[in-house]
Amino acid sequence: MIEALAAACTDLITDPDLLVSYQRDEADLCDSAPPLAVARPTTTDEVARLVAVAAAHRIPVVPQGARTGLAGGANAGANALVISMTRMNRILGVDPANRTATVQAGVINRALREAAREHGLTYPPDPGSWETSTIGGNVATNAGGMCCVKYGVTAEYVLALTVVLADGEVLRCGRQTAKGVAGYDLARLFVGSEGTLGVITEVTVKLRPQAEPGLTLVAEFPSVAEAGAAVARITAAGLTPSLLELLDGPMVAALEAYRPMGLDTGVGALLLASADTGSKAADDLDRIAACCGSAEVHRATDAEEADALLAARRNAHPALEHLAATTFPGGGGAVVVDDVAVPRSRLVDLIEGIARIGERTGVIVATVGHAGDGNLHPNLIIDRTDPASLAAGRRAFDDIMALGLELGGTVTGEHGVGLLKRDWLERELGPVGLRVHHAVKAALDPAGILNPGKVIAPPVDSPA
Amino acid sequence: MIEALAAACTDLITDPDLLVSYQRDEADLCDSAPPLAVARPTTTDEVARLVAVAAAHRIPVVPQGARTGLAGGANAGANALVISMTRMNRILGVDPANRTATVQAGVINRALREAAREHGLTYPPDPGSWETSTIGGNVATNAGGMCCVKYGVTAEYVLALTVVLADGEVLRCGRQTAKGVAGYDLARLFVGSEGTLGVITEVTVKLRPQAEPGLTLVAEFPSVAEAGAAVARITAAGLTPSLLELLDGPMVAALEAYRPMGLDTGVGALLLASADTGSKAADDLDRIAACCGSAEVHRATDAEEADALLAARRNAHPALEHLAATTFPGGGGAVVVDDVAVPRSRLVDLIEGIARIGERTGVIVATVGHAGDGNLHPNLIIDRTDPASLAAGRRAFDDIMALGLELGGTVTGEHGVGLLKRDWLERELGPVGLRVHHAVKAALDPAGILNPGKVIAPPVDSPA
Repeated sequence: MIEALAAACTDLITDPDLLVSYQRDEADLCDSAPPLAVARPTTTDEVARLVAVAAAHRIPVVPQGARTGLAGGANAGANALVISMTRMNRILGVDPANRTATVQAGVINRALREAAREHGLTYPPDPGSWETSTIGGNVATNAGGMCCVKYGVTAEYVLALTVVLADGEVLRCGRQTAKGVAGYDLARLFVGSEGTLGVITEVTVKLRPQAEPGLTLVAEFPSVAEAGAAVARITAAGLTPSLLELLDGPMVAALEAYRPMGLDTGVGALLLASADTGSKAADDLDRIAACCGSAEVHRATDAEEADALLAARRNAHPALEHLAATTFPGGGGAVVVDDVAVPRSRLVDLIEGIARIGERTGVIVATVGHAGDGNLHPNLIIDRTDPASLAAGRRAFDDIMALGLELGGTVTGEHGVGLLKRDWLERELGPVGLRVHHAVKAALDPAGILNPGKVIAPPVDSPA
Repeated sequence: MIEALAAACTDLITDPDLLVSYQRDEADLCDSAPPLAVARPTTTDEVARLVAVAAAHRIPVVPQGARTGLAGGANAGANALVISMTRMNRILGVDPANRTATVQAGVINRALREAAREHGLTYPPDPGSWETSTIGGNVATNAGGMCCVKYGVTAEYVLALTVVLADGEVLRCGRQTAKGVAGYDLARLFVGSEGTLGVITEVTVKLRPQAEPGLTLVAEFPSVAEAGAAVARITAAGLTPSLLELLDGPMVAALEAYRPMGLDTGVGALLLASADTGSKAADDLDRIAACCGSAEVHRATDAEEADALLAARRNAHPALEHLAATTFPGGGGAVVVDDVAVPRSRLVDLIEGIARIGERTGVIVATVGHAGDGNLHPNLIIDRTDPASLAAGRRAFDDIMALGLELGGTVTGEHGVGLLKRDWLERELGPVGLRVHHAVKAALDPAGILNPGKVIAPPVDSPA
């Protein structure tokens, strides 16, 4: 079987020392094991041959991009063939007349942006991992980011896909046109399916004209509730900031402890907002500032200062890692990144509920997120070597999921289900939704070899 | 069986004189027959009971909105149960804080807009039928319109759906949040599925802040090629007009013959363009005008004149009906509305190819459409009582589809597949795409009772 895989793809890794490094993504609390083998194809044909061999031998296939995922969606199992897409990194074309680009799935988000910029265009979706994550991974998880409040998520930029199906056949779906309604929207079905319905090998995305550089402000609020109320006023005023991020007090304190930049660590919450509406941007920022009421508002005076503010936001994750390491100096400190979205009108309820959950469970929770979308990332600081801390962390995690659903929200706004939230997905979907998920999965992957166990639990006779 | 249907829904029509009026939509060249019965439910529960009865008796179910479709997607067969959604016309709520509205599927597009306007919001998708068509029908066909060039199609506004499945179970899918990636995008799978995967009974849509009133210009070009080149320049300049419509010479002549308004009937093509960017609109319109090169550009001096220009565009269909009636005074004159989209860069090739097809087949073709999206409607003027004219019309229709595919486009930009383009869809999808369509259909409707024969041909053992 290994011979058949090696015949399908010349770059096949079976050295146990190397396999370990393809074991998992960046999610905590998820199982993983070194895979059987890792193939690194460079063409769709190679992927098709690999999947055909896997189908013949009923080997689970786990597609991987840069393994920056936060839900265990790329985690391997001991009997799995990992297909690493990182060598499929060619930009196949940028078409300025149609404002599209076609890339292999392993192209890094940043590389696509740079290629688009040469034509005065941009690819907006900007997950936190944009400098290292792949477009294929972004599509497979329907990645979000800070721009979404104005420019939308990855799904809104996907026009066409090339996908290797569970039997090794190659499907081209979607379209190269601005509009089209020919048949079912199969391309959209693969977006966000986390490798469970097919292996995405090529992607055609929409591009946009580059936006004007944004103007940015930061507003300091005495409480998160007041920051949430400002977000509601901004929405109600019909404003569309190009970025609207919230950082709560513990998050601000963690940032300041990690890289001091003069932030007031006694603050209740910060809002970061940008406007990129060209000649209207200063006016729009004035209106956003007015919505912040009595908060102390500071405008970045130039692009450099604006970049510094946004870099602080981008530093959230390393700052939290630092907080975990200093809180639990024994080496067991870890950050469990959560991801929950609620209707915008329930943002304050979510923020306050998260704080209460932290108090109740005794877990340090620092929250940052895309306030304009009602999508927050509560970060749980735990000691993974301490069973009590781990248990409290799991309790806090579950309570936050339950709170999100109770507020009419979803258990994942942008990070995906993977292994981490499979049980919670079942609760969100309900029995009818779950049944339809199983029916769709069985229609596209009847033997259950594609990323088994991710998103939904496999049926009993699955190879997983 | 009729008794069981009557028990499921009190408003059940079986009078043959009435059934005739539920036979078909507005598409030409498509088969239809009066149905067995027409049910007019007012709740999701009634729809669920109806479908359960139909499933038990293997009766084909044909969902209908306002029957304004242009592809035969709502056409009935002799043994079908039509579920007319027109009495499910309640607006269930407008939520300004979250910028959403939830409506029953039979709510008219216009009524939703009016309800949104009371909150300073709008529902942008504006198919030609917006004053009479239903939101359920708009969603089932993923309807487009003139706004799409800036604001996108129906799919981009659908957040959540309630759908009655083929076995009568009720699925709630999608989300009430701005973002969410919990599981497969089932809501998007139903959008554009033309009633073949489930009966949509309730819809939650995104709303937007109302745009500022647009400024509008009309540009007269000596040839359609020059109008197409202007469209390419507008795109290349990074401009995003809120409307960018093209009318070719025959279309302009038909409009002027129908309602004289002083249009130059010797013109090669007109472009209509609007900008709704508030304080930037006049500048943007200047830039659009500059892209029109040496064309004669006339700006509407006030909102009334702009409305008159857009009304002329909205009159395209009655003007073509008038042209058909006067061209073939024997009463057989008919307009076959086609719908094809190509990559924007191929717009001129499409326009010129359509003109050549008209000449070659001897069919009068008048073209109007959404130039900014590369989506055109060539209208074929035929005499349906003359077999030679009908045959020539079919030939022209097929040649236009083939041309669209040859140019890298799609056989339907916004009208859908229905019965009219089923064979052409197979050509567009290819064997793998078609197989996946059949697999998805079988997963959701194993007995094949939902709108059988629409979009894809039914398998041999289907009830259709």
